[in-house]
Amino acid sequence: MITQTSYLIEPIGFVRSALSRLEDAPMQGDEGAPDAWLELTPEAAPGLAGIAAGDALIVLTWLHLADRAVVQVHPRGDESRPLAGVFATRSPSRPNPVGLHRVTVLAVEPGRLHVAPLEALDGTPLVDIKPYVPDFDAQTGVRVGWYETRSNR
Amino acid sequence: MITQTSYLIEPIGFVRSALSRLEDAPMQGDEGAPDAWLELTPEAAPGLAGIAAGDALIVLTWLHLADRAVVQVHPRGDESRPLAGVFATRSPSRPNPVGLHRVTVLAVEPGRLHVAPLEALDGTPLVDIKPYVPDFDAQTGVRVGWYETRSNR
Repeated sequence: MITQTSYLIEPIGFVRSALSRLEDAPMQGDEGAPDAWLELTPEAAPGLAGIAAGDALIVLTWLHLADRAVVQVHPRGDESRPLAGVFATRSPSRPNPVGLHRVTVLAVEPGRLHVAPLEALDGTPLVDIKPYVPDFDAQTGVRVGWYETRSNR
Repeated sequence: MITQTSYLIEPIGFVRSALSRLEDAPMQGDEGAPDAWLELTPEAAPGLAGIAAGDALIVLTWLHLADRAVVQVHPRGDESRPLAGVFATRSPSRPNPVGLHRVTVLAVEPGRLHVAPLEALDGTPLVDIKPYVPDFDAQTGVRVGWYETRSNR
């Protein structure tokens, strides 16, 4: 089987947010992130049909400011922790910097969604939007690796 | 702010699986999918450091056989259901066909992971691997949209 060696992501839209500086962005959406708008391109906007306020979504972004050459990091930027492979962490710097964000829909308008919480910066390209389905996406009793266990919301 | 209009995904590796035909692949990993190997490129392999058997991961793939021109579908291919936007479904056909798979690590070998369940076909390019973190990725009491509610595992 011949496999292509690279693939082109064409953004389906962009994040519009009050977060404009990397140093203001929390590491994850549950760590103080604000609401934001997902503005879709005219071509992608029909793909929103069926999404309603209250829906739980998974938003995939392209973290365009990430360093793609990084394969090992100190988890959460804490140099007292040993180096870990980026695939064992949620570091934004990684070979294909796709951000994964679980959000709730606050409102739907033509061609755009109001969602929260979202830690992505204003202007971040949108790769994809999927419904969050607990049967596919959630799992209980997991080993959480580098992360502290906190109560689930 | 000037934004690039497209981004290049360079696979970090490929899926090795007994699933070789699209018609044999279940729609989701919890619907009878087998185990599989995630084989990383030499450049990306150091990114696996810190991953161990028993870890819960989120695997992102590039569903290279998907139809990227599709923005509306009948959910789960059932034509008795009304057309929905692809972003309200888990259809593989979508503008940027990134597959999202929650798997458990069965074994770690140099440069590769043995995982299950994974419904992706043999040869599917790997985009990213992230640790599954319930505090970030799980959510209770969600509206599940087009999908039936089944008991969580």
